[in-house]
Amino acid sequence: MFGGNKWVPKGQHCYVTGGSQGTGLSLALILVKQGAHVSIVARDANKLKQAVEKLEQARQNSDQIIRWYSHSLSTYEGAAAALEEACKPFGGRAPDVIFNCAGSSRPAYFIEETPETFKTGMDNTYWVQAYTALVASKMMARQKAKGKIVFVASTLAYFSMVGYTSYSPGKFALRGLAEALRSEFQLYEIAVHIYYPCTIYTPGYIEENKTKPRITAKIEESDSGITPEQAAEGILQCVQRGKFQHASDWITSLFRSATRGAGPGDVLDPLRNLASWNVIELPVK
Amino acid sequence: MFGGNKWVPKGQHCYVTGGSQGTGLSLALILVKQGAHVSIVARDANKLKQAVEKLEQARQNSDQIIRWYSHSLSTYEGAAAALEEACKPFGGRAPDVIFNCAGSSRPAYFIEETPETFKTGMDNTYWVQAYTALVASKMMARQKAKGKIVFVASTLAYFSMVGYTSYSPGKFALRGLAEALRSEFQLYEIAVHIYYPCTIYTPGYIEENKTKPRITAKIEESDSGITPEQAAEGILQCVQRGKFQHASDWITSLFRSATRGAGPGDVLDPLRNLASWNVIELPVK
Repeated sequence: MFGGNKWVPKGQHCYVTGGSQGTGLSLALILVKQGAHVSIVARDANKLKQAVEKLEQARQNSDQIIRWYSHSLSTYEGAAAALEEACKPFGGRAPDVIFNCAGSSRPAYFIEETPETFKTGMDNTYWVQAYTALVASKMMARQKAKGKIVFVASTLAYFSMVGYTSYSPGKFALRGLAEALRSEFQLYEIAVHIYYPCTIYTPGYIEENKTKPRITAKIEESDSGITPEQAAEGILQCVQRGKFQHASDWITSLFRSATRGAGPGDVLDPLRNLASWNVIELPVK
Repeated sequence: MFGGNKWVPKGQHCYVTGGSQGTGLSLALILVKQGAHVSIVARDANKLKQAVEKLEQARQNSDQIIRWYSHSLSTYEGAAAALEEACKPFGGRAPDVIFNCAGSSRPAYFIEETPETFKTGMDNTYWVQAYTALVASKMMARQKAKGKIVFVASTLAYFSMVGYTSYSPGKFALRGLAEALRSEFQLYEIAVHIYYPCTIYTPGYIEENKTKPRITAKIEESDSGITPEQAAEGILQCVQRGKFQHASDWITSLFRSATRGAGPGDVLDPLRNLASWNVIELPVK
């Protein structure tokens, strides 16, 4: 925000999870165009190959290392194997930036969740980013590397509603993790960022709409989403402006302001707080 | 808050997890003294037996059903078995109130977390309450029962800091779950409450201090805690005042106000917001 030089992707190793499609792929493309080395990680090898073809077309010079790695990131073992492989072309050196873009949502009524879908919800929101953060932090601290760890949460990490009982808890959890890490990493040269996008029109969004309860879709009707490119730009802004938390749009900013917690706010927050202030508590039955 | 009759424990079946010691036991004691039927659940059978002896001494009449059940609640199977057993003396009818007091903390530096301790942190904060909520909600909805589900979070569900990377995420997650359930349960006659206590001087607190990083203990030095009895009174107030969220003390209220999210606040919140407003964002390195 003040002091400090704006982060420049050129020549940096950027590790992008969920990089085979949607926001992750859009971000990888921007980074390649700005001259970064980019490793993308996801599960589906075919999608990864196609994604790397797109990235190759955007290559700026012949030195750029652009690779894909197929792993499931919702286990520690998968997260550790993926990171280790991706660091090999760099002599084992930790990536400069970890962009945790992996994640998915499967909206449903709570009453209809099974133990499996409920647990999978946490895997696909929290663990898919948290394990990578754990592996990468240990590596960065061990190497005394100056690194950045970026999480991608959601407007639904600021508040929640019907349909998101298997999604919001994991996104809220990422927020708790990011706040604790921001505090702990004062001890190291590791920066922590967390980005809160609203609806993003991605393949994942089409997928989640298949199970979305109608009432949830109705509430979201008036919410205008953003493109994966816009979300990717938002993530980059969050890092380049040196912001701990950054929201994608004015309505998410309103929620951020009302729920900003221990993180810093901005000069408009008192007004936003008034706008979202609500003292009428309908008695819970 | 207005309208509605104050909830009275007498004759109600109260299901208290974490009921063998600390806050859960204090709450169970208050409920027994007010004439409720009380089922306590925890892992340690010896502690449970001793706890039930204390509860028996506070019995108000011979009709009160006071029982203990030994189960691990951090799996769905354990949570389901415990609830099913506890409902048998009531002809299988769902409890009137589920008090989720179970949970524990094991503070550590993130860098020193293993995959196991990190995962166990989520089990002992989130799953230990969330699975019981899932089992109980399904039962209440199936029986078209009018019930209450109460979560116990923490000040560390409003903000986080060094030492709590395996604790805060789960407590934040409970908050996300409670907000989503508050929305979904407009469809049923199930009330959702969530209580945010600060430090409670319990056997669990003594346990967590054994692994607490010194820097974490130092930050908490000026934090004055509350007794398990005070925490239990707070939980009861939360339910009896019909409040969705309730904080144990003025400093947690300050955090609640700064992070209240989509839930209702109170008339002092704009002042609290100003008091906790912070626009100075030190650049992350």
